[in-house]
Amino acid sequence: MKKILFAIVCLWSSAVMAQNTNGIENLMPWPKQIEIGEGKFRLDESFELGMMGFQSPRLIAASTRYIDRMTNRTGLFLDQGWITAADSNASASLIIEVEREGEVLLGEDESYQLTIDENQIRLLATTDIGAVRGFQTLFQLISIDEKGYYLPQVDIVDEPRFQWRGLMIDASRHFQPVGVIKRNLDGMEAVKLNVLHLHLCDDHGYRVESKKFPKLNELASEGQYYTVEELKGIIKYAADRGIRVMPEIDVPGHASALLTAFPELGSKDTTYSLVRNAGVFDPTLNPIKEETYEFLDQLFGEVAEIFPDPYFHIGGDENEGHHWDQNQEIQAFMKANGLKNNHELQTYFNQHLFEILGKYDKYMMGWDEIHTEGIPKETVIHSWRGGGQDLADTTTLFAAARQGYKTVLSNGYYIDLMRPASHHYLRDPYFGYELEDEMKNNILGGEATQWSELVVPLTVDSRIWPRMGAIAERFWSPAEIRDVRDMYSRMFKLSLILEHYGLQHIAGKDILLRNLANSRNVEPVRILVDVLEPMKGYTRNAGGFMYDVFSPYTKLADATTADALDALKMDYLVEDYKDRKIGSDALVAQFNLWESNDEALRAIVLQSPILDQALPHSANLKILSQDALVAIEHIDSGRKPSKKWYKEALQHLEEAKSQSGRVELQIIDPVAELVEMTQTIRSNQD
Amino acid sequence: MKKILFAIVCLWSSAVMAQNTNGIENLMPWPKQIEIGEGKFRLDESFELGMMGFQSPRLIAASTRYIDRMTNRTGLFLDQGWITAADSNASASLIIEVEREGEVLLGEDESYQLTIDENQIRLLATTDIGAVRGFQTLFQLISIDEKGYYLPQVDIVDEPRFQWRGLMIDASRHFQPVGVIKRNLDGMEAVKLNVLHLHLCDDHGYRVESKKFPKLNELASEGQYYTVEELKGIIKYAADRGIRVMPEIDVPGHASALLTAFPELGSKDTTYSLVRNAGVFDPTLNPIKEETYEFLDQLFGEVAEIFPDPYFHIGGDENEGHHWDQNQEIQAFMKANGLKNNHELQTYFNQHLFEILGKYDKYMMGWDEIHTEGIPKETVIHSWRGGGQDLADTTTLFAAARQGYKTVLSNGYYIDLMRPASHHYLRDPYFGYELEDEMKNNILGGEATQWSELVVPLTVDSRIWPRMGAIAERFWSPAEIRDVRDMYSRMFKLSLILEHYGLQHIAGKDILLRNLANSRNVEPVRILVDVLEPMKGYTRNAGGFMYDVFSPYTKLADATTADALDALKMDYLVEDYKDRKIGSDALVAQFNLWESNDEALRAIVLQSPILDQALPHSANLKILSQDALVAIEHIDSGRKPSKKWYKEALQHLEEAKSQSGRVELQIIDPVAELVEMTQTIRSNQD
Repeated sequence: MKKILFAIVCLWSSAVMAQNTNGIENLMPWPKQIEIGEGKFRLDESFELGMMGFQSPRLIAASTRYIDRMTNRTGLFLDQGWITAADSNASASLIIEVEREGEVLLGEDESYQLTIDENQIRLLATTDIGAVRGFQTLFQLISIDEKGYYLPQVDIVDEPRFQWRGLMIDASRHFQPVGVIKRNLDGMEAVKLNVLHLHLCDDHGYRVESKKFPKLNELASEGQYYTVEELKGIIKYAADRGIRVMPEIDVPGHASALLTAFPELGSKDTTYSLVRNAGVFDPTLNPIKEETYEFLDQLFGEVAEIFPDPYFHIGGDENEGHHWDQNQEIQAFMKANGLKNNHELQTYFNQHLFEILGKYDKYMMGWDEIHTEGIPKETVIHSWRGGGQDLADTTTLFAAARQGYKTVLSNGYYIDLMRPASHHYLRDPYFGYELEDEMKNNILGGEATQWSELVVPLTVDSRIWPRMGAIAERFWSPAEIRDVRDMYSRMFKLSLILEHYGLQHIAGKDILLRNLANSRNVEPVRILVDVLEPMKGYTRNAGGFMYDVFSPYTKLADATTADALDALKMDYLVEDYKDRKIGSDALVAQFNLWESNDEALRAIVLQSPILDQALPHSANLKILSQDALVAIEHIDSGRKPSKKWYKEALQHLEEAKSQSGRVELQIIDPVAELVEMTQTIRSNQD
Repeated sequence: MKKILFAIVCLWSSAVMAQNTNGIENLMPWPKQIEIGEGKFRLDESFELGMMGFQSPRLIAASTRYIDRMTNRTGLFLDQGWITAADSNASASLIIEVEREGEVLLGEDESYQLTIDENQIRLLATTDIGAVRGFQTLFQLISIDEKGYYLPQVDIVDEPRFQWRGLMIDASRHFQPVGVIKRNLDGMEAVKLNVLHLHLCDDHGYRVESKKFPKLNELASEGQYYTVEELKGIIKYAADRGIRVMPEIDVPGHASALLTAFPELGSKDTTYSLVRNAGVFDPTLNPIKEETYEFLDQLFGEVAEIFPDPYFHIGGDENEGHHWDQNQEIQAFMKANGLKNNHELQTYFNQHLFEILGKYDKYMMGWDEIHTEGIPKETVIHSWRGGGQDLADTTTLFAAARQGYKTVLSNGYYIDLMRPASHHYLRDPYFGYELEDEMKNNILGGEATQWSELVVPLTVDSRIWPRMGAIAERFWSPAEIRDVRDMYSRMFKLSLILEHYGLQHIAGKDILLRNLANSRNVEPVRILVDVLEPMKGYTRNAGGFMYDVFSPYTKLADATTADALDALKMDYLVEDYKDRKIGSDALVAQFNLWESNDEALRAIVLQSPILDQALPHSANLKILSQDALVAIEHIDSGRKPSKKWYKEALQHLEEAKSQSGRVELQIIDPVAELVEMTQTIRSNQD
């Protein structure tokens, strides 16, 4: 066997721009340890799965999912049907050996071993959750050669680096129905994530059926909330996949929904209504009223009963305390009780919550802001502000971890900011430091956050996937696995695999493209969209007030994604061209395609006014492509272009940076690179 | 205004193969009466909806859906947000006037009037259900010109021809989750259907949560069933759209699921298990046991309580009575009670059911087979066998209607047979006869049936849509509206509109294409798939045993649909070419594309063995395209081709008829037409 412990073989060169069919190159997250041999296990209709020894409903269900996905991937009509307890043939092609049922709790054993040779496949795991993890690797390994489908000979020993590997979905700002949550759980299964954090209450709505407080649903949910039965279904669905589900009820700020139903609990004597825009708003629970704690006791009790997970998230973020400042009684209370500022008042509030949650056997978790003096050490600090500037940093994840708090990092994993996957991929929960064991022990892992100001069910998958795979790899794989180009190569292969899990990240985008094109013929739109990315950070939603909850989310910006595929490819083509690894053919072909696309796009816009904001980008794409072609011609022929041309090209690059339709053109860097390459030519100018 | 009462303007000529943007051409079902003017109501951000007078939750919800779809279609950021009771501005752009709340019952008033002029839109209806119907027309009317989006000036008076306009979905053979049902209800809303018939119990599984008989779920559902809460959610969702939901529990045959849980109620002393294949099976309830009726009384009572609709479907079909014949006690009982044959025994059984359902205030409905002597006249006969050969036919819909039974026609609307939309479109519930009023009165309407042996959630939408629109038009529009080419033109426009309603008929197919291509580059596969159709009738599933419940449903046949788009277009191109309405350019371009596709497809198959069954069709498509190009060349130049060529071309056409991958090539007819056209050339042969 050939040892590839950390296989950083870049597979995404121009030579293999076509589909590569070796399953090793699909692996994401990359396993802890892998040895690859030359043998092949052939997949055919006689394929059979046998469970040796221990069985559980989770294992049987996971086996059935594997068989179902495998048969649909390969088109093989298997002799074996859905897996039942009777499937325990010791000479089956795929032998599963599990020792015990896993508990869906933080720290459970998720390790597995996978051995494939020409005659048999063995998947061994301590827990059935470990087996669930192994099945994903096994599915990714499905490979193709001229004879058909096979699994490559491998020896894999795998376990996660971090025990908390999460995805938060904000179901408050835009409600995300059960189907969205379930298919995202399927995606999480695919990349071995183990925590779904549901942000269920914010200024825009309360999203849990409340039997104790029906007013929350009548007045603060607009009919958009999960019933208790639906939540139990989600939790069961997640548990089947070895995924915990943690609820968040965000208090004392972000409280417009709670106060719309119960204004008497607010810090200001007013009426409240649901928020429609983005931003940080003033409505805040009144921390000096006994009724507030009575209400939260009952509310948390109700939610705690639905969610079996021992962790309960109380939010606690972005309370600017304006209404506290304005309330005379609160000010008097603070003075009387020696609370010097709003931070201390919030600590006072949180200490009450800590007691309430203790009654329900829950650990309290909250965002950075709850990390104040006086907060019990059993609290988990969820760091969205991050830090990591240096080891001595006192305002960060590190500070909390050093003080003995358990911590989870989300800073750097805010996927709603629409930064490229590489940005998140390179953010490490240890920030690249060698930490002491105790610190390591206190940093449980990380969570990506999908805030939903600008996402609706049709677009949410394309915001999360496939790049969530890159983040999942950061949380699962050894820290040394951090080659960005290799990651992208595997991430875009994962993208197709995720469709077998039911994700709609490509299909939803196609629907948007057809609406933009007003036709089934979307190709010119797709060509443009695949070099555009939405404005990053929170710039797209200017001032937070450009978009409402009910704005159209079917426009150009919604069809673009954070990693513009063809722009990324061009980055690497130019890199290889510059390094003289390839000639200019592939570049020229791509720039010619882009150059000629503008005309076709203009014809479409005439039929589809919703697309008109694409025109400036299309024009810029044409101009930059023309410049790139000229640059390449000069580089290839060794003739330096004129100063005038160079100056104009720089001007074009500058002009192409302007946004239109809340999106930005992404091929500026590689074209700039080509333009600059012309300046190193030593021959005479034109 | 220009009167177009029955506008049969064929819009699908080669000249307008590109997207047409006039909303009139999107209308489906076509309204009863329409006058079209020259004016245009411009859509812009000031668009506002105002409800005058009566309001209801249904009307507010429908208004919100309209605004949501409109804003997403056009990309307009409206000043008005979600609709609330406060939206009653009398000078709003769109005025809604409704008289009363509609009841979701057979025969409710669904009429509406829609008047659009340059300054205002008025939607008038007796009931809020009528308004729901009108909103669909209003959405389809969204039009585009060089200035942007507008609504054309129209005067529409509309109401349905039939009061029962249904779609049956079989959730037993392959379970269809709640999300599938809800998005199909959205599609039904789009084309003004008003009955969802859920086939909930068959040999493959029982799909209703049973609190009285949990064994049905434990043993006969495999975890795949609707909870009571989910069903109530579906019913509420449907009622919001003015759609009734009728349950079917199929007895006494098709009983494998019921008998898997309760074998003691079977006609044979044996154990039973869930069926995996397709076909008609023997397990049958025992009609002479008191326990059978006690069980059905409780079961029907439980189901009747969930579904408020007054109609309850008891199936009753395909009971071949083999187990009755073999059971001595049943034979003795029949003799003792003067029941001469199994039909009379089933009538005896059904009479009991009629009484049971009467207790629950339900009308009994059942398939053809329950139409026997002695069945009460209040029973509704659901005709799947059809008839209509002549007016005197005694075995048919007509016979039942003449005897005074209410009837619903499904014969001719079996969409699982994968026949073209035109086939269903031309089937009329009156079979083209002028019927007496009493007969008309007894033929309530029709229902399309989506049996699910071969469909899974990923493919079911593409089996139902867009062609369900053509059937909906048959049920809604005047009988005279039956121009097939015009229908197809509008149906393919409807197809894109349906994506705004959440249907996945195109997106799901795209997912299959990517799996088939093993790549995002699916174009060569799409080009082929759009001239292929799955084998028709029940021939695809040879003997009923080729496919299991758990077979792969991601193969070539699953990606094809019943109306191969490009093949249909070629039919009409050849028609126009033959009629000398167009020259050969468009034909030559298309045949050249098909001819050159084979090479690209072969390259893909090397990377994707699941697609290998496409190769014979691709080769045939190439050969037929070559023949077509030769034929066109001769026709255009007036030179007759050689007899040898003609003979070979006929041979090619014959060979191209063979199936591969359970699909058939669809361009045989137009190519044969071209080949035959060469034989009418009067010049010398080559």
